[in-house]
Amino acid sequence: MNFFTLQWQDGAVVMIDQRKLPNHEVYNTYRSHEEVAAAIKTMVVRGAPAIGVAGALGMALAANNSKAKSHEEFFAEMDRAADLLISQRPTAVNLPWAVKRIQAFYRKEKDSSLLVLQNKILEEALRIFEEDVVMCRQMGEKGAPLIEEGKTYLTHCNAGALATAGEGTALSVFYEAQRRGKKFKVIASETRPFLQGARLTAWELSKNGIDVTLVTDNMVAHLMRLGKIHGAVVGSDRIVANGDVANKIGTYGVAVLARHHGIPLYVVAPSSTVDFETPDGSHIPIEQRPEEEVTAFFGTPSAPAGIQVFNPAFDVTPHELVEAIVTEKGIARAPYAENLKKVLQRS
Amino acid sequence: MNFFTLQWQDGAVVMIDQRKLPNHEVYNTYRSHEEVAAAIKTMVVRGAPAIGVAGALGMALAANNSKAKSHEEFFAEMDRAADLLISQRPTAVNLPWAVKRIQAFYRKEKDSSLLVLQNKILEEALRIFEEDVVMCRQMGEKGAPLIEEGKTYLTHCNAGALATAGEGTALSVFYEAQRRGKKFKVIASETRPFLQGARLTAWELSKNGIDVTLVTDNMVAHLMRLGKIHGAVVGSDRIVANGDVANKIGTYGVAVLARHHGIPLYVVAPSSTVDFETPDGSHIPIEQRPEEEVTAFFGTPSAPAGIQVFNPAFDVTPHELVEAIVTEKGIARAPYAENLKKVLQRS
Repeated sequence: MNFFTLQWQDGAVVMIDQRKLPNHEVYNTYRSHEEVAAAIKTMVVRGAPAIGVAGALGMALAANNSKAKSHEEFFAEMDRAADLLISQRPTAVNLPWAVKRIQAFYRKEKDSSLLVLQNKILEEALRIFEEDVVMCRQMGEKGAPLIEEGKTYLTHCNAGALATAGEGTALSVFYEAQRRGKKFKVIASETRPFLQGARLTAWELSKNGIDVTLVTDNMVAHLMRLGKIHGAVVGSDRIVANGDVANKIGTYGVAVLARHHGIPLYVVAPSSTVDFETPDGSHIPIEQRPEEEVTAFFGTPSAPAGIQVFNPAFDVTPHELVEAIVTEKGIARAPYAENLKKVLQRS
Repeated sequence: MNFFTLQWQDGAVVMIDQRKLPNHEVYNTYRSHEEVAAAIKTMVVRGAPAIGVAGALGMALAANNSKAKSHEEFFAEMDRAADLLISQRPTAVNLPWAVKRIQAFYRKEKDSSLLVLQNKILEEALRIFEEDVVMCRQMGEKGAPLIEEGKTYLTHCNAGALATAGEGTALSVFYEAQRRGKKFKVIASETRPFLQGARLTAWELSKNGIDVTLVTDNMVAHLMRLGKIHGAVVGSDRIVANGDVANKIGTYGVAVLARHHGIPLYVVAPSSTVDFETPDGSHIPIEQRPEEEVTAFFGTPSAPAGIQVFNPAFDVTPHELVEAIVTEKGIARAPYAENLKKVLQRS
C-alpha cells in the first residue's frame, strides 16, 4: 500500500482524513481519546476493522494521558473512555470488541504498577493493530482462490486498506489475487450517501494498479443483466450467529440482485466481526445518520429544503443470500449456524 | 401545478431549467430549434413526454423562423431540423414520435401556402402539447384506483409534471389520488447520477402537498424488506411490443427487488411511449451519458481523476416483472403482446 489508514506515531494516533479523499491526501494527528472518538463519529476513519483498531489506540491514548493516582481511579477513567469510544458507532461489532479487549486486559493486569500498565495497554493496542494487518493478509490468502481468471467482480462500499490497519477485507482478496498474477476486473459501486466506493475504493484500487470501473449504485442490476458482473465481494460490520450479515446500506440490494442473476455473493471479514451473542440479523441495531448526507453534496443542496429523509447507514443481508463467508481462519459456507463456529474454532 | 415545465410564449419556447432545481426556479427562453435541441441534450428539459412536446415546439420554431422561398426548400429545412432534434436523445420514443408527427403533418398539408403552413405547424405542435396535458389527466384517472389508502409507494426518477406538459405520468396518479382524498405516502429514490428524484420529484411532490420522503437508490431494498414500501410506480421512455419497458437507470433493479418482496410495479406512460415496431427490449438503444455525471457533484470531484466509468442513462425491465402498464386509454396487464394493442386501440 502506498498510503496508510492509521498509525501510532510519537505518542499520538495519525489517521488519513477519509472525508477529504480522493481530492486531498491529508493525515491528521489525534492526541486524546476524545479526539479519536470524534474522528470515529465524523468518519475521518471508518470501516469496521479500522474503527476497532482506532478504538484500541484511543484507549492507549486514554491510558497514556491518565494522571490517575490509584488503580481504582485509573480503571474508572479508562472505563469512561471505553464507553465514550464504543458509543460513537452502534452497528459494527469490531469497535466494542477491540475496546472491551483492552478493558479485559487491564483488569487482568491489575497487579502491574500504573506506569507499567500504561505501557502494557499500548502494547496490547499495537497487538490489535498488528493482528489486524496479519488477518487482512490471511483473508486475502483464503479468498484469492475464489477470484477467477478473466472475470469481473462487484464490490460495494470500501472494505479495503482504508477500512483496516492492513490491506483490507474484501479488497485484500483482490490484492492477493493480483499478486498471484490473476487477471480480473473490479466494478466499484459509488455507495451513496457517503460515496465510499467512489471516493475510497476507486482511489485505493486504481492507486494500486487494479482495473476498476466506477458505477452508481442503481446501475448494478443493469450490468448484472448484461452479464458484465460474475461475482460480488463485500465486507461486513457484523456477522451474527446464523450467518446474517450487516454491512453498508445497499449490500442487501446487491445480494438480492446477485441471487436473481445467479451470481455468488462473498462476504470477507475477520473473526472479530462475528458476534455469536446475537442470534439473527433482526437484533442488529442499525445506525441512522444525519439527513445532510442525503440532501447535499459537498455543501450544495441536492434536494429541496426541509424534505423528509431516511438515512440508515447499514442493512442486513439474510444468510440465505450469502454464498460464502471468508475469514482469516478459512471459508464458511451454509449452514452458517454450524459452520461459522467450526471455522472460527480453528487455531 | 404551481410552476410550468414548458410553454409557447410570444413566438418562443420557455422552459424551466431543470438542471438548476431545486435551488433555483429559473425559466429560459429559446428562439430557435437549435437552442431547443441543445436544451434537450443538456437536460434543461427531460422526461420522455416533455422532450416530445419540446421537439414539436422546436419544429414550430423552425417553421416560424424559416425564410424558405419554396415548399421544397421549406421541407428540406424542416427535415434537417427534425433530424437534429431527434438525434439529441436516442432512447425515448416520444421525441421521434412527436417530431415525425409534425413531419407527416406538413407533408399532408403541402397544398397550403407557406405562411398558412407555418401557422398550421404551430397549431399542430400546440395540439401535441394539449394532448399531453389531457393524457396526463387521463393516466391519473386510470391509475388512481391502484393507490391504496394508507400505503406507501416508491417512485424512481421523475415521471412528474416536470417530465410532461401536464401533471406527469407516474406522478399524475399520485396527484389524482390526492384529489380523491386518499391518504398515502411516497418514497422518492434520488436517482443517481442526475438526481431527478432528489432534485425534481421531491421538489414537485412536496411543493404540491404530497407526503414524500427522500432516500438514496441503495436504500430501497432495505425499506422493502422492512415492509415500508407497498408498491412502485414509475414512468417509461419506451415500451416495446412485448411489454418490455425502458426507463431511467435503476428501474430494472427496483423491478427485481419489488418482485423479490412481492410488491407490484406499475408503469405509467402515454400511448405515444409504446413502440410496436420494436419487438423486445434487447433492441432498445441505451444512451451512454458523460462520465462527469458520475464522477463529480456540482463541479466537485467525487472520484479519483481519470477513473473508468459506465454511465448508461436507461435500463430495460422485462415485461415479466411489470404488474400493469397504465396508459391514458386504460390499464394493460400480461400478456402484454396481446393486451397492449387491445388497450391502445380503444378510442
